[in-house]
Amino acid sequence: MTDFQEILDRVMVNMGKLGELLPKEMDSFKTLREAALEEGALDPKAKELMALGISIAIKCEPCITSHMNNLVKMGVTKEEIKETIGVAIFMGGGPSIAYGGKALEAFEQLSK
Amino acid sequence: MTDFQEILDRVMVNMGKLGELLPKEMDSFKTLREAALEEGALDPKAKELMALGISIAIKCEPCITSHMNNLVKMGVTKEEIKETIGVAIFMGGGPSIAYGGKALEAFEQLSK
Amino acid sequence: MTDFQEILDRVMVNMGKLGELLPKEMDSFKTLREAALEEGALDPKAKELMALGISIAIKCEPCITSHMNNLVKMGVTKEEIKETIGVAIFMGGGPSIAYGGKALEAFEQLSK
Amino acid sequence: MTDFQEILDRVMVNMGKLGELLPKEMDSFKTLREAALEEGALDPKAKELMALGISIAIKCEPCITSHMNNLVKMGVTKEEIKETIGVAIFMGGGPSIAYGGKALEAFEQLSK
Amino acid sequence: MTDFQEILDRVMVNMGKLGELLPKEMDSFKTLREAALEEGALDPKAKELMALGISIAIKCEPCITSHMNNLVKMGVTKEEIKETIGVAIFMGGGPSIAYGGKALEAFEQLSK
Amino acid sequence: MTDFQEILDRVMVNMGKLGELLPKEMDSFKTLREAALEEGALDPKAKELMALGISIAIKCEPCITSHMNNLVKMGVTKEEIKETIGVAIFMGGGPSIAYGGKALEAFEQLSK
Repeated sequence: MTDFQEILDRVMVNMGKLGELLPKEMDSFKTLREAALEEGALDPKAKELMALGISIAIKCEPCITSHMNNLVKMGVTKEEIKETIGVAIFMGGGPSIAYGGKALEAFEQLSK
Repeated sequence: MTDFQEILDRVMVNMGKLGELLPKEMDSFKTLREAALEEGALDPKAKELMALGISIAIKCEPCITSHMNNLVKMGVTKEEIKETIGVAIFMGGGPSIAYGGKALEAFEQLSK
Repeated sequence: MTDFQEILDRVMVNMGKLGELLPKEMDSFKTLREAALEEGALDPKAKELMALGISIAIKCEPCITSHMNNLVKMGVTKEEIKETIGVAIFMGGGPSIAYGGKALEAFEQLSK
Repeated sequence: MTDFQEILDRVMVNMGKLGELLPKEMDSFKTLREAALEEGALDPKAKELMALGISIAIKCEPCITSHMNNLVKMGVTKEEIKETIGVAIFMGGGPSIAYGGKALEAFEQLSK
Repeated sequence: MTDFQEILDRVMVNMGKLGELLPKEMDSFKTLREAALEEGALDPKAKELMALGISIAIKCEPCITSHMNNLVKMGVTKEEIKETIGVAIFMGGGPSIAYGGKALEAFEQLSK
Repeated sequence: MTDFQEILDRVMVNMGKLGELLPKEMDSFKTLREAALEEGALDPKAKELMALGISIAIKCEPCITSHMNNLVKMGVTKEEIKETIGVAIFMGGGPSIAYGGKALEAFEQLSK
């Protein structure tokens, strides 16, 4: 069984290390991320869901984990997750079913 | 200059031909698309924007064109488009700037 | 060591859950899959081998596992698997050697 | 309208230039390609169709063109092409409809 | 024939527009880019060549164009370009031959 | 925790098996790899770093492992690794942070 909390912990540890090694790159990326996800014509949760949909479509397991964690903290519902998976399947076919399934597992584990 | 109306026209013609050649596949895909994009916890425009964000992140020019066309018909605003491009850049780096630029061109041409 | 039976089991469990959450999307996808893989000018095994070749080329481990399982049930030979891996290497370079190797492991484990 | 003959011509010219610049790489790649596509448990046409399916799934227009040209020379039928597109749609979702449409255009133009 | 100068011009125009629409994202991305490409253990040309190799491997035509333009301004040699294409072919197989060919065309056009 | 030595061992075992099953493909690929990575206008380490950068950008964990192992044997420094990760982040956005983090883990484990 994949332990999504462990994947998340490693992503966080690695981001900390990268922040020390590449401070300018990581600081500017952080600014980019905050600008991209801030409240605007679209709200932050819609943007995180979009990031999750992209993560599923591009088959990126640590990305799925990280954005799911952000979404759980925002109080995302299972309905919102499942519809995001639906869009990803439409855009990604069979592989997005496999990675949409991972997203569902991540939701179940991280929302406990 | 890329003519996004021409790209759209060709996508439409090709979808018609594929519908004749692969009626079962294309009919079931149409059902899948309608289910994935229908009103639910997320509204259809949010889902189309998500499909656009995925299209930019995966560098798919005809997909960008097709989803942009759907969005223009739904009355999407430039604010919503630009923020979707922002999320794609966050998720896709430099290549998403290039394809986000194509999305912007498509918006300008198709919303005329 | 990767346990491909466990990967397969999780894909199956997740597909069951997605079937409950997204019945319209998953039913139409099932219809699409059956139409795409049915006997025609190409036989079902040739189509599953093509799906396997695509899975290797796009580096999708759960897809490799799932299509290998279908192929093993169809009585695929090691010759057919190895030649599919050969085409994937031609189309995907070094990464397809790594994922072709995973396909070989999956074949060995799932054909026991 | 995309001119697939022109795409093909450019691929051929470029391969010639790369053959002069990178003779060892291109010669060994040629050997790899011949080995991967030769008659075996799968016949050369099945392997070219697999290469076409991969080309559609990975959204590679010059690859679609080049493999379609090989297939036309082998006497591929429209039935075989359409079923290959069907498998690609199953594996690639919406983007494979767009690139499957390009494959169909390439078939129509190159088989004239 | 692809006009790489025109592709470059459009990328530049689009980046200007994105800079007005998404100033925070584009400014932070610019800072990220400068940090990533500055002189360090690796020199700026080696880093641009790496960006070109990635661009070929991921089949991104506007990226190839943009990084080739930077490289031409830096005085890149045909030897350096061809060896970068060689690495991309090793990592990307057949599709990287097609996009490596595009890189070669871009070099020839933009270095005039 | 990911055990990168174990990933490396499996890649090596699988390459051995593929070498027996597909001798012509694997021999020609070996010739291709040696030609692509040999001393020239760019030195072998610069080429391996480029292969690593591509591996991160395309999210290929076994590729990251294998090229990192080659680099460690060549005496790569942490500075060179971190700057390669920086280029990959510039070219790949968020997902390259996740896979750049994996590269850092692989470096730490394999350079012990």
